[in-house]
Amino acid sequence: MAATEEELELLRKELVGMKEESEKQGELVRALKGKKVEKKEIEEAVEVLMKLKLEVQTKEKELVAKVGSDGGKSSNKETFRQQLNDTLTNRLFFIPAFKIYGGVAGLYDYGPPGCAVKANVLALWRQHYVLEESMLEIDCPCVTPEVVLKASGHVDKFTDFMVKDEKTGMCYRADHLLKDYCNEALEKDPLLTAEKRQELKGVLSTLDELDAQQLGAKIKEYNITAPDSKNPVSDPYPFNLMFKTSIGPAGNSIGYLRPETAQGIFVNFSKLYYYNGNKLPFAAAQIGQAFRNEIAPRQGLLRVREFTLAEIEHFVDPEDKSHPKFKDVADLQFLLYPRKEQLAMEKPVKTRIGDAVSQGIVNNETLGYFIARTYLFLKSLGIDEERLRFRQHLPNEMAHYASDCWDAEVECSYGWIEVTGLADRSAFDLKAHSDKSNEDLTAFEKYPKSKEVERLKVTPHLKLLGPAFKKDADTVGKALLAMAEEEALAMKAKLDADGQAPLEICTTGKTFTIKKEQVSISKEKVVETGRRFTPAVIEPSFGIGRIIYCMYEHCFYTRPSKSGDEQLSVFKFPPIVAPIKCTVFPLMQNEKLNDVAKRLSVDLTRAGVANKIDITGTSIGKRYARTDELGVPFAITVDFESLDAEREDATLRERDSRAQVRIPLEEIATVVRDISEGRLAWVDVLSKYPHVAPSHED
Amino acid sequence: MAATEEELELLRKELVGMKEESEKQGELVRALKGKKVEKKEIEEAVEVLMKLKLEVQTKEKELVAKVGSDGGKSSNKETFRQQLNDTLTNRLFFIPAFKIYGGVAGLYDYGPPGCAVKANVLALWRQHYVLEESMLEIDCPCVTPEVVLKASGHVDKFTDFMVKDEKTGMCYRADHLLKDYCNEALEKDPLLTAEKRQELKGVLSTLDELDAQQLGAKIKEYNITAPDSKNPVSDPYPFNLMFKTSIGPAGNSIGYLRPETAQGIFVNFSKLYYYNGNKLPFAAAQIGQAFRNEIAPRQGLLRVREFTLAEIEHFVDPEDKSHPKFKDVADLQFLLYPRKEQLAMEKPVKTRIGDAVSQGIVNNETLGYFIARTYLFLKSLGIDEERLRFRQHLPNEMAHYASDCWDAEVECSYGWIEVTGLADRSAFDLKAHSDKSNEDLTAFEKYPKSKEVERLKVTPHLKLLGPAFKKDADTVGKALLAMAEEEALAMKAKLDADGQAPLEICTTGKTFTIKKEQVSISKEKVVETGRRFTPAVIEPSFGIGRIIYCMYEHCFYTRPSKSGDEQLSVFKFPPIVAPIKCTVFPLMQNEKLNDVAKRLSVDLTRAGVANKIDITGTSIGKRYARTDELGVPFAITVDFESLDAEREDATLRERDSRAQVRIPLEEIATVVRDISEGRLAWVDVLSKYPHVAPSHED
Repeated sequence: MAATEEELELLRKELVGMKEESEKQGELVRALKGKKVEKKEIEEAVEVLMKLKLEVQTKEKELVAKVGSDGGKSSNKETFRQQLNDTLTNRLFFIPAFKIYGGVAGLYDYGPPGCAVKANVLALWRQHYVLEESMLEIDCPCVTPEVVLKASGHVDKFTDFMVKDEKTGMCYRADHLLKDYCNEALEKDPLLTAEKRQELKGVLSTLDELDAQQLGAKIKEYNITAPDSKNPVSDPYPFNLMFKTSIGPAGNSIGYLRPETAQGIFVNFSKLYYYNGNKLPFAAAQIGQAFRNEIAPRQGLLRVREFTLAEIEHFVDPEDKSHPKFKDVADLQFLLYPRKEQLAMEKPVKTRIGDAVSQGIVNNETLGYFIARTYLFLKSLGIDEERLRFRQHLPNEMAHYASDCWDAEVECSYGWIEVTGLADRSAFDLKAHSDKSNEDLTAFEKYPKSKEVERLKVTPHLKLLGPAFKKDADTVGKALLAMAEEEALAMKAKLDADGQAPLEICTTGKTFTIKKEQVSISKEKVVETGRRFTPAVIEPSFGIGRIIYCMYEHCFYTRPSKSGDEQLSVFKFPPIVAPIKCTVFPLMQNEKLNDVAKRLSVDLTRAGVANKIDITGTSIGKRYARTDELGVPFAITVDFESLDAEREDATLRERDSRAQVRIPLEEIATVVRDISEGRLAWVDVLSKYPHVAPSHED
Repeated sequence: MAATEEELELLRKELVGMKEESEKQGELVRALKGKKVEKKEIEEAVEVLMKLKLEVQTKEKELVAKVGSDGGKSSNKETFRQQLNDTLTNRLFFIPAFKIYGGVAGLYDYGPPGCAVKANVLALWRQHYVLEESMLEIDCPCVTPEVVLKASGHVDKFTDFMVKDEKTGMCYRADHLLKDYCNEALEKDPLLTAEKRQELKGVLSTLDELDAQQLGAKIKEYNITAPDSKNPVSDPYPFNLMFKTSIGPAGNSIGYLRPETAQGIFVNFSKLYYYNGNKLPFAAAQIGQAFRNEIAPRQGLLRVREFTLAEIEHFVDPEDKSHPKFKDVADLQFLLYPRKEQLAMEKPVKTRIGDAVSQGIVNNETLGYFIARTYLFLKSLGIDEERLRFRQHLPNEMAHYASDCWDAEVECSYGWIEVTGLADRSAFDLKAHSDKSNEDLTAFEKYPKSKEVERLKVTPHLKLLGPAFKKDADTVGKALLAMAEEEALAMKAKLDADGQAPLEICTTGKTFTIKKEQVSISKEKVVETGRRFTPAVIEPSFGIGRIIYCMYEHCFYTRPSKSGDEQLSVFKFPPIVAPIKCTVFPLMQNEKLNDVAKRLSVDLTRAGVANKIDITGTSIGKRYARTDELGVPFAITVDFESLDAEREDATLRERDSRAQVRIPLEEIATVVRDISEGRLAWVDVLSKYPHVAPSHED
């Protein structure tokens, strides 16, 4: 897809030539019609005209597709990132927060265009997921009492390993120190032996799996010191990443800022299940702030201390993870990177998601459905699908309870970045909260008709257990009742054969000998009206800031100015996410032109189109450049023809092709609204309204 | 406006009769057209039909306006609130957060309908303020470093007075204890003397102004004890309401959860001013979470520990607070409650905002503009304008730096509640941050042409100051330069008269004697290209949760079920804020009807209309009741006529009038979209499509 600037220039010239030809033919047709020549002659001329117009459209599409499609790929990554970040911070897409006080690492503000982009991305997310799937969206507090995060495991396990400079007390992430050491040695040390290189690469690939002791051992072995002072560092120890606070005035109630939004959904499961008419499956969703007190934030918007998450918890019967709408997406093809390919060091493969599910590569239809929908969502934001892949977690990356996990990863100048996690978390979360709260968090499936089923029944005979086990009798009785079906059947077989059987009680480690007469184990027929179970949860979780940053990288390109002496920045945002949809310019400073421009701006606002009017005296070329830099897809220029009572129209320019058409003033707001909301395509605008040669100043 | 259920029933019957008459006339017209009678005869019949239709429309409007307009006014407040809160919590508009763990006071979850209402209110706010005024919306972190909140005054002064139970340590708000004591005595103590009554009323009216010592004295005097234990309580002391945390791993960087979003805008002033082309006025806006660690939260959603704020900071030249769009709102009239009327114990007065500004009741046009726009905003949410007033702060309520403050207050079952504050905060905030950060937070107004102006010039002669004041010479020199114009002129007069003058240095308290030759003070002509100044800030600040709660109260009403044996709850939300715009029902359980209903639901989703399909076998009346309870404005019922190839239409029912029309299936999604988005009125739908008699089951 990549195109050099020369190729693009050629394409543009071809396009201009073709348009001129098409315009001329149009004039010919009009002239013929005026002359009342033979009908056949007119028809032939019209046919030629239609053909030319079609060619122009095709060429337009080609140009739009090629413009800027190389992103950060061909150019030098560092230069690309520098240019991008200069534009992003100069135009206030984002800026370090509290800058006048020196700022705080890992905290950023979204300025006006960034804030608008974020609002647009979230609105699209709501439309694409919540509205489309009738999800139950909820909104829970950020401040969370300790007990909730104790149950979820975050209080005990949401940690990174940290080391401290032994003299200054400065803190570092242990794995980052080790990673930086290995990377630097591999890059810069020419004396490294092949064996050593292999070792360091091994360390890098297993970095996420090292525990405190292993990390500490490596840091000692490689003599790694604090980067700022070269002082020795402490042994690594776990640092909890949650911001801690105190709720209420008494000071005895610990709270944390939530590290994710999911827990707010889990604790409400029963209410949501009831709201959904006690029916499964259903999905709940939440958009909101989450917080992680990172040890040493880096990589700009990619690792921050406060961020917006959009999470979905789709609750399903663990025995039926089919999805009624899977067939609608089954034919979609995109890059999948399953375990097998990763372990074999092969590349991601473009795969039909229907095949991935039927071949068992993706665990189930529901997970596959969300993967496919996420592909569509990210693509609609302007993420390049050639640099988007779904990578399956390796067994050692997944939590022990998870059935299958895939990360949507986007390639940007920092490498492949996880932007969305899609995990089948089984029943873990609901069980954890049910255990801790003693609340019932199960679902009930009523059978179409009641069923008679065989169930194993264990009855400990307490009168005999008492004398036999004294103070342990109660424990033994409970342990007998707690046996799994398999265990109980094994005991029954042993009792029938030998008259006695051993019973090991895990919690105490003691083993007791049970006699046949002390317990009855038998199969009984029971009538069941349905089954009660803890639902499984499939969780797509979206890091909105990361998605937006990757979108910035994929939408950013530069093109030379008219004079060729500078590179102009452009964001080719799809209209739906562009922060401003349209700018309105009077051609030059003139009160009458200003009045028309202001009226058009009011029309656009009424139509709900975010727009900006620019009545500064700057040259039209500079104003176009300013608007391109914000990724504004359309610009209206009001000129003296707009004032002409016979015409009353203005030019509308598309950002990437820089093609221009003339549209009547009264239609323009509606046209811009429709193309901004995706209800009308630019090519249709091109075919409906007369083209004009690009402005000399553009 | 209040209407009894009998009056409403009468109105409804009248309406049904009128509709029948109109339908009959319609049939007559069609019959006449079929018969090809005299043109005049048809015209006359059509004229009668038009008249009847117009009457139906007028009656419809009357009914819609009367339905539920009495809110919590006529019925008993407690009962009303109980019914409302039962509906709100049963239908998950909001619920106490973390309920399975016993909950946390002052923290709530918004369930699915509440979350949708909130998203709709915020979208409307964005359209009404941000888009309409081209405001610069930004998005800053909740976690805020101490220095920012030190500068704003929150670290030192954002406190409530607290007392502790001396034995149990339980905490209470001192003013709440005193308030409850006074109210209870006034209500329940029949032996209270007239004098004592007067005293307690006096305490209640000055409650907000008492300091710790005064509060403590009253608590002692009245022998007030801890409500839960009757133990004595401690002296009151200030408790800071901000949640405190620690940023980063080292533990030495204090942070707070922001108590408001405004500070994030102030610290970015320079960047936003630059973004706006270094032009004033402009407004910045922010929507986001804010946090207050209330001592003892009460009143449900009205006083919570975490809430959503939407704040605007409009920066203006303090010498020109006119507003170009003020004329667009000047004729609006609504309830104003100025200082004068409050002090005279008079009622709020319906006032034209243009008059309030020209008479100086409201300080300036910009403040008046935002008051009027806020009136429009709250009204569009369904807030009853008869129970909405703008109350001016009394001088003792305002911060010393503020020029004028008005609160939008809504009357609900808890009394008059502040939902929006509109304050002219002068240059206080920018100056505070500029002082603390040493950053320039000023604006510059360039004059159309440079001006020659006289400026006082003070030149300390350092060579003479040195020997005279030794180590103090530098301080004296700086103090001379820092003199205000008036001060310098007074010194000059004194020096000219006496040859010497005293100079008091405030920071040290020392006074020095300055000799005439040690300083020159003279007026000089200077050419100035413009003036530099700190902008003033006009701040409208919206408590979104409070607005939503008040809207719930004003939109809630009950009406008897068909059988008359129960009261059904209804929320008459305007379509634009309704959580779901439309429900789709098959008339009964039938696969063909279900299919059509599902297709319509997909059509609605495609059109961006939040909808819900209900294919349970419940009676249509019950399903209507369920949907009314969620405030869904429209319901589509698919019946067997919908399957009829000749008809292919379905009924559309409006929630409050319960009027029904039949609309072709292919048009229905577009019609519902247009009425939901306010582009089409229900009365227009009524006049365009044929009415049907309300379903027997409704």
